[in-house]
Amino acid sequence: MYIPSLADMLVAHERIKPHIHRTPVLTSQYLNDLTGAELFFKCENLQKAGAFKARGASNAVFGLTAEQAAKGVATHSSGNHGTCLSYAAGRRGIPCTVVMPRTAPQAKKDAVRGYGGRVVECEPSTTSREAVFAEVVAETGAEFVHPYNDPRVIAGQGTCSKELVEQVSGLDAVIAPIGGGGMISGTCLTLSNLMPQIKIYAAEPEQADDAYRSFRAGHIIADDAPVTVADGLKVPLKDLTWHFVQNHVTDILTASEQEIIDAMLLIWKRMKIVMEPSSAVPLATIIKNKDVFAGKRVGVIITGGNVDLDMLPWQQK
Amino acid sequence: MYIPSLADMLVAHERIKPHIHRTPVLTSQYLNDLTGAELFFKCENLQKAGAFKARGASNAVFGLTAEQAAKGVATHSSGNHGTCLSYAAGRRGIPCTVVMPRTAPQAKKDAVRGYGGRVVECEPSTTSREAVFAEVVAETGAEFVHPYNDPRVIAGQGTCSKELVEQVSGLDAVIAPIGGGGMISGTCLTLSNLMPQIKIYAAEPEQADDAYRSFRAGHIIADDAPVTVADGLKVPLKDLTWHFVQNHVTDILTASEQEIIDAMLLIWKRMKIVMEPSSAVPLATIIKNKDVFAGKRVGVIITGGNVDLDMLPWQQK
Repeated sequence: MYIPSLADMLVAHERIKPHIHRTPVLTSQYLNDLTGAELFFKCENLQKAGAFKARGASNAVFGLTAEQAAKGVATHSSGNHGTCLSYAAGRRGIPCTVVMPRTAPQAKKDAVRGYGGRVVECEPSTTSREAVFAEVVAETGAEFVHPYNDPRVIAGQGTCSKELVEQVSGLDAVIAPIGGGGMISGTCLTLSNLMPQIKIYAAEPEQADDAYRSFRAGHIIADDAPVTVADGLKVPLKDLTWHFVQNHVTDILTASEQEIIDAMLLIWKRMKIVMEPSSAVPLATIIKNKDVFAGKRVGVIITGGNVDLDMLPWQQK
Repeated sequence: MYIPSLADMLVAHERIKPHIHRTPVLTSQYLNDLTGAELFFKCENLQKAGAFKARGASNAVFGLTAEQAAKGVATHSSGNHGTCLSYAAGRRGIPCTVVMPRTAPQAKKDAVRGYGGRVVECEPSTTSREAVFAEVVAETGAEFVHPYNDPRVIAGQGTCSKELVEQVSGLDAVIAPIGGGGMISGTCLTLSNLMPQIKIYAAEPEQADDAYRSFRAGHIIADDAPVTVADGLKVPLKDLTWHFVQNHVTDILTASEQEIIDAMLLIWKRMKIVMEPSSAVPLATIIKNKDVFAGKRVGVIITGGNVDLDMLPWQQK
């Protein structure tokens, strides 16, 4: 297991700069008053392809040798990683294949294709996904870029908190959602090296709290198909992300489905940004744990903005 | 009629800086590809109180003498100006009264009250509004801050394009929606003095095209109660805003209701920001008039983000 270093993250940032936005940091007096903390929202929903995953995907794609690149990249993902890998591959002009369950939302398939990627459908089961994915790789020789358990991806995600500490001084804490742990691991990589005094918190839905339970148990616990509105956070930790979580995270906090939806609506209303339910979990946990954050300067990573605008969670009765 | 000067705008910017956000400028490769232009979106939907009107209102409020301020401010508005005047008055700790039709949306009344302002209801007619407003002023001695036909307000709105040209170099054109003409007048004030080579376009709904017809006729034409999804753009030009429009606007372009809604959805989807229908009119007209903007660097002012999240225009069947 290769653990990415600070140097990997710094190289990643130089490499991906032409391909990503340096996303803005927004603040809201209303949310500061509500929480008693000073919140600095790093808006990766405004990132290329609508998610922080453009960072890790771009680092993986643009780090390939010409020979590797010619064969393209492949992944399995029904979420932002598939879209962002297709985005990065499109920028480099190389093939990209994303294996997706045939039951995945049409919008997700369209997003991959919109950037020039190819969607290969599998049945909605791990067995089918692995079999279909193996076929794709055998056929194309494409480089596998895992959605999060990949040092190139983690180094790329780490560039987000590098920008954040350049944009905001004197942070006491940074909080980000946790699913597979790619963003949290990148955050740990960067901050534990550059600003070790900043505490790192992870935020997770109660209904998909495998990282929370792993953290307390001291080993990885994986759930089978959890159900949560925060659909980006259903996947389990893997060895590489577990390494960072175990060694550098101060705590993992959880929030209920209703708390997540309330926090999401609050951000839309007060901050005027379109973001996914997953991105609302940190604010939900801050509101729930005011004592932890009161009086602190807190970076909050808004991870993505890809959401179905025809049916928003607060409109579902 | 006092016409605000460049000096008034510069003073306004220094005066209001502590009370406003320097809003970010966002770009979208997708929208650039779609239009053939390079678009730079100045995001006043991310402004304090959710609209550029926080600029003009703050300039008016913080420019009052202590004696004037003690009596407070008043206006009539069922839109962002009322909310923003209440915001600015709240910051200064002075009274604010907003006269609103009793039929105005509850959310708009709540927004005024949320910043500490008082709502006084009138009947939904000009006669009632004027009578009730006269009573309010007689009773309180409050300073009237007109939503747009006020040199203090126009000087404040002019700070938006000052920031824009500081943030983006080499602009060929700037486009903003036009209703009463406050934002456009501020833009004219700033750019005609600082960057006279930049062309200024105004964008208006076809269904509320009084400014368009005024521009062509050479005198102010006012419509009675036009109906458009772009509810911020229903009011007519007045003498002061007409002065700027007549002298400094290159052209006024219009878009249909469907074109406005399509452009709004496009911005939400691709740029991940919450903005009002009024703010989508400029992009709608750019898409419709590609030949005018192709190959140009164009500043696009996103004027506000206060919209009913329970019922979005593309969800109304």
